[in-house]
Amino acid sequence: MNKMKNNCYGICFFISIAINILLCTGIYMYIGGARWEDMKQEISWQSSLALTWSEKAAAEAEAVAAASCSGHGRAFVDRLTSDGQPVCECFNCYSGSECSVYSVECAAVATSGDLTFLEPFWIQNAANTAVVISGWHRMSYNYADATKMLKDLENCIRKLHSIARNAVTEGRYMVFGVGSAQLLSAAVYALSSGNSSSPSNVLASIPFYWLFRDQTSFFSSKYFEFEGNTNSLQSKNSTNNRDVIEFVTSPNNPDGELKKPVFGGKAIYDQVFYWPHFTPIPEPSDQDIMIFSLSKLTGHAGSRFGWAIIKDRDVYEKILSYTSKAAVGISQDTQLRALKILQTTIDEDGKPFFEFAYTKMTERWDRLTSVFSKSTRFSLQNRHPFHCNYFNETRLPTPAFAWVKCEREEDNDCRSVLEAGKIISLSGSQLSATDRYTRVSLTVRQDDFELLMIRFTNLISLENGSLQTM
Amino acid sequence: MNKMKNNCYGICFFISIAINILLCTGIYMYIGGARWEDMKQEISWQSSLALTWSEKAAAEAEAVAAASCSGHGRAFVDRLTSDGQPVCECFNCYSGSECSVYSVECAAVATSGDLTFLEPFWIQNAANTAVVISGWHRMSYNYADATKMLKDLENCIRKLHSIARNAVTEGRYMVFGVGSAQLLSAAVYALSSGNSSSPSNVLASIPFYWLFRDQTSFFSSKYFEFEGNTNSLQSKNSTNNRDVIEFVTSPNNPDGELKKPVFGGKAIYDQVFYWPHFTPIPEPSDQDIMIFSLSKLTGHAGSRFGWAIIKDRDVYEKILSYTSKAAVGISQDTQLRALKILQTTIDEDGKPFFEFAYTKMTERWDRLTSVFSKSTRFSLQNRHPFHCNYFNETRLPTPAFAWVKCEREEDNDCRSVLEAGKIISLSGSQLSATDRYTRVSLTVRQDDFELLMIRFTNLISLENGSLQTM
Repeated sequence: MNKMKNNCYGICFFISIAINILLCTGIYMYIGGARWEDMKQEISWQSSLALTWSEKAAAEAEAVAAASCSGHGRAFVDRLTSDGQPVCECFNCYSGSECSVYSVECAAVATSGDLTFLEPFWIQNAANTAVVISGWHRMSYNYADATKMLKDLENCIRKLHSIARNAVTEGRYMVFGVGSAQLLSAAVYALSSGNSSSPSNVLASIPFYWLFRDQTSFFSSKYFEFEGNTNSLQSKNSTNNRDVIEFVTSPNNPDGELKKPVFGGKAIYDQVFYWPHFTPIPEPSDQDIMIFSLSKLTGHAGSRFGWAIIKDRDVYEKILSYTSKAAVGISQDTQLRALKILQTTIDEDGKPFFEFAYTKMTERWDRLTSVFSKSTRFSLQNRHPFHCNYFNETRLPTPAFAWVKCEREEDNDCRSVLEAGKIISLSGSQLSATDRYTRVSLTVRQDDFELLMIRFTNLISLENGSLQTM
Repeated sequence: MNKMKNNCYGICFFISIAINILLCTGIYMYIGGARWEDMKQEISWQSSLALTWSEKAAAEAEAVAAASCSGHGRAFVDRLTSDGQPVCECFNCYSGSECSVYSVECAAVATSGDLTFLEPFWIQNAANTAVVISGWHRMSYNYADATKMLKDLENCIRKLHSIARNAVTEGRYMVFGVGSAQLLSAAVYALSSGNSSSPSNVLASIPFYWLFRDQTSFFSSKYFEFEGNTNSLQSKNSTNNRDVIEFVTSPNNPDGELKKPVFGGKAIYDQVFYWPHFTPIPEPSDQDIMIFSLSKLTGHAGSRFGWAIIKDRDVYEKILSYTSKAAVGISQDTQLRALKILQTTIDEDGKPFFEFAYTKMTERWDRLTSVFSKSTRFSLQNRHPFHCNYFNETRLPTPAFAWVKCEREEDNDCRSVLEAGKIISLSGSQLSATDRYTRVSLTVRQDDFELLMIRFTNLISLENGSLQTM
C-alpha cells in the first residue's frame, strides 16, 4: 500500500514537474523572453502611435492608392463607388473596370500639357508628400498675418529659385495665383495704359500659347486689347506712339527656345518651363515680371498654383489687387499642398527631383531624335547645347514638346498626317503658327511615350521606298 | 529515512502542484483566455491596419491638432517651427507662444465675414471630414471625363439643395468657381451687352457688399460698368434704353433681409446666406443665376469654393468659359476637400449640421436682442418671423451680421462710437450706406462673442443716467 502510494506520489510528482517544465517552456518559446518584450513593446508602440481622427481617412487613402487597376489605371479618393470602393480611371488605350482591356489599335495621345511623366517620382516620395487636412483646417479668409499668402510657402519658393538658379528673387515681390493663368491676366491689367482712348496693345511672337490671345480678348477691357503677333507691327518704329505689352515665353511653348522680347517696352515673362528638366539654365532670370507654375515644375496642374516675381512695387500692388478682386485670394488647401510638394522638390538641393526629371526628358529626346534621324518627311525643332548653371555642364535643351514640322509640300496639315499614323497632336494653328507644324507632348506617362515611339517608328518606316501619301 | 523521503516527495509534490496552479492561473489571469485572444486580435488588427506612406503625415497632423495653445489658439500643419513643432496662432485678445497671455483691455473684433462659430462642429466631426491627399493625387489638368469639375461634388451639391430646400437645381447647369467672388464677375461678363457703345449698367441696392462695385469697376470692361445703387436711376422708366444687370443679394449682406430685384431685367442672385442657419427658407430659390459659397455655408472660406446654378445654356457656357480663361478651372485639391465637408453636411438630411448652426445663431440673436432691448442709443435691424420649409416652423431670421444703427443725432459715425466702447466693426459706408450704420459680425468664435456681449452690455449700460457722449 505504501509502495503504491509512494509510486503514486512519484508519478504524480514527475507529471507535475513535467507540466511545469512544459508550461515554462511554452511560455518561453511561445511568448519568448525576447518576443514577449518585443510584443509588449509593439503593443505599447502601436498604442502611442495609434491615430484617432485621421485614421479612417488615412486608411481609406491607402486602400484607394493600393488599387492596382492592373497597372494601367489610377484610383483617387474623390471618386468611390456608393459602397466606398475605388474606381479605376484607366490610362490611354486601356478600359474595363480593372483597366485590363487593351485596345491594340488605339492612338497615342500627345495633346495635353500634363506632366504625368513625373508621377513615379511622387509615388516614390509618398511619405514626404502626403498631406492630411483636418475638417477645421484654416477656415478663415486670411492667415494669421492678415494676408492670403502662406509665408512659409513664399520662403520655400525663394529657396527653390536660389537652388535652381533660374530667377532672382532677392528684393522682389511675390504674388500667388490660381495657376500661372490667372497671373498672366493680372499682369496685363497691371501694365495696361489706363487710357481708354489709347489702350495697350498686347502682343506675342508666333508660335505662342493660345491663352494669351483668348484670355486677353475675353476680358475685353477698355485699357488693353490683343493686337496679335509681334510681326504684325510692320516695323519697330510703328510702336512709337503705342503702348505695347509683350508676352515673352522663355522657354517658348511649343518649341522650347529661350526668347527675348522683340520690343524694348513692357514685357511679361512667362517662364513656366524655365527649369533644369526642360532647358539648360545659363543664368538666373532677372525680369520685371516673371511667372512660374507648379503645373510645369512638379506636374501638379490640377492644384492650380502659380506665382509671379515682380520688381516694381506699383506693379506688385496691382497684381495683388487683381487676385484679391478676382477671387479673394487663392485656396489655402492648395497652398498647403504646394508647400509639401515643394519642400520635397528642394530636398538635397533639388538633386533627386531635377535629376529624375532631366534624366527622363533626356532619354526621351535621345530616342525621339534617333527615330526622327531616319525621316525626311518629319523634322524636329533644332536644339543647340549651352551651359547649364544647375547641372554645371553643357547640355542640350530637352523641351516639353516636340514641335514637329511636316517637310513634304503636300503635308500642309501635319496634325492630320500624324493622326493617320495614330498619333494625336495639336495643330500648329492652335499656337498661331501654320498647320505645317504640330505640337507633340513628350511629358506623358512612360507607357504612353512607348506607344508614341512605336507609332512614330511605324510612321517613319513607311517613308522608305513608299510613295503612299499616308 | 523512508519517512523523510516520503515527506520530501510530498512537499515537493505539493510545491510542484502549487507551481502548476500558479502558472496556470497566471497564464489565465495575466494573459487571460479572452485577453489573450483580444491581444492576439489586436496585434493582428494593428498589423493589418498598419499604415504606410500616410502614417507620418497623419501622425504629424494629429500632433499639431493636439497642441492645446492653452485653449485660446490653434496650430495648423502648414506652419511649423524649423524643428517641426506646432506654432500656436492665438485667438483675439490672447498672445504668447502658448496663447496664455490675456489682454484684459482688448477690443472685441467683429469685422470679418469668417464663420468661425462653426469650427466646433468640424472638430466634432473630425474623423469624417479629414482628407488625406497623396503626393500624386490628380496631377492632370482635367478629370477623367475631360472636365474640370468633380462630378461627385456636383451631385452632392444638388442633393444638398434638395435637402435644404433652398434652390431648384433640377434641369439647371452648375459651374464651380474660386469662391462666389469669381462667379459674381463671371456672371457679369456672361450677362453683359456685348455692345461697347452701350455698355451694361451694373447696379445693386444699398446697402450692398463692396465687391460688386470694386470688382466690376476694376475689370473696366468695354461691355459693362458699375453704375451704382438702384436708387441712382431716378425712376424705373430711365432704364428703358439701358441694359441693366442687377445684383440681388438675398439674404442681404449686411442686414439679412430677403430681397427682390428693383428692375425687371437681368439679375444675378448672390444667395450665399440663403441657408437655414441664417434665415427661414420659405421656398426654393428659382432664379436665372444663383450663386452660393462654401464660405457662408460651412465656414471654409480659406478653401475658396463657390458654385453657380444657371438656367440658360448660353449663360452657362459663358460663365464656364470665364472660369476656364481666367484660371483654367479651380483647384482639384479644393474640390476634394469640399466633397468631404459637404458629404458630412448632408448627413442625416443635414439635421446635425443645420441644427448646430441654427441653434448657435438663435442663441446669439436672443442674447443680442436682450442686451439691445435696454438701449435707446443703438438699434438692430428689424426681424419678422416667417415660415421655414427646412425646419418646418415659423421662425425669426438669424442673420450673420447685426446691422447696428446709432440713433442719436450726434452719433453719425457709428463705427467710432462702437470703437470707443472697444468693439471693432465695419463702417456703413463700406456697404455704401451711411456711417450712421455699422456692421457687426455675429459669426465669430464663442469666446469672441462672449467678449462682444460684455462690451455691448457695458456700452449700453452707460446710457442709463449718463450724459456723456462716450
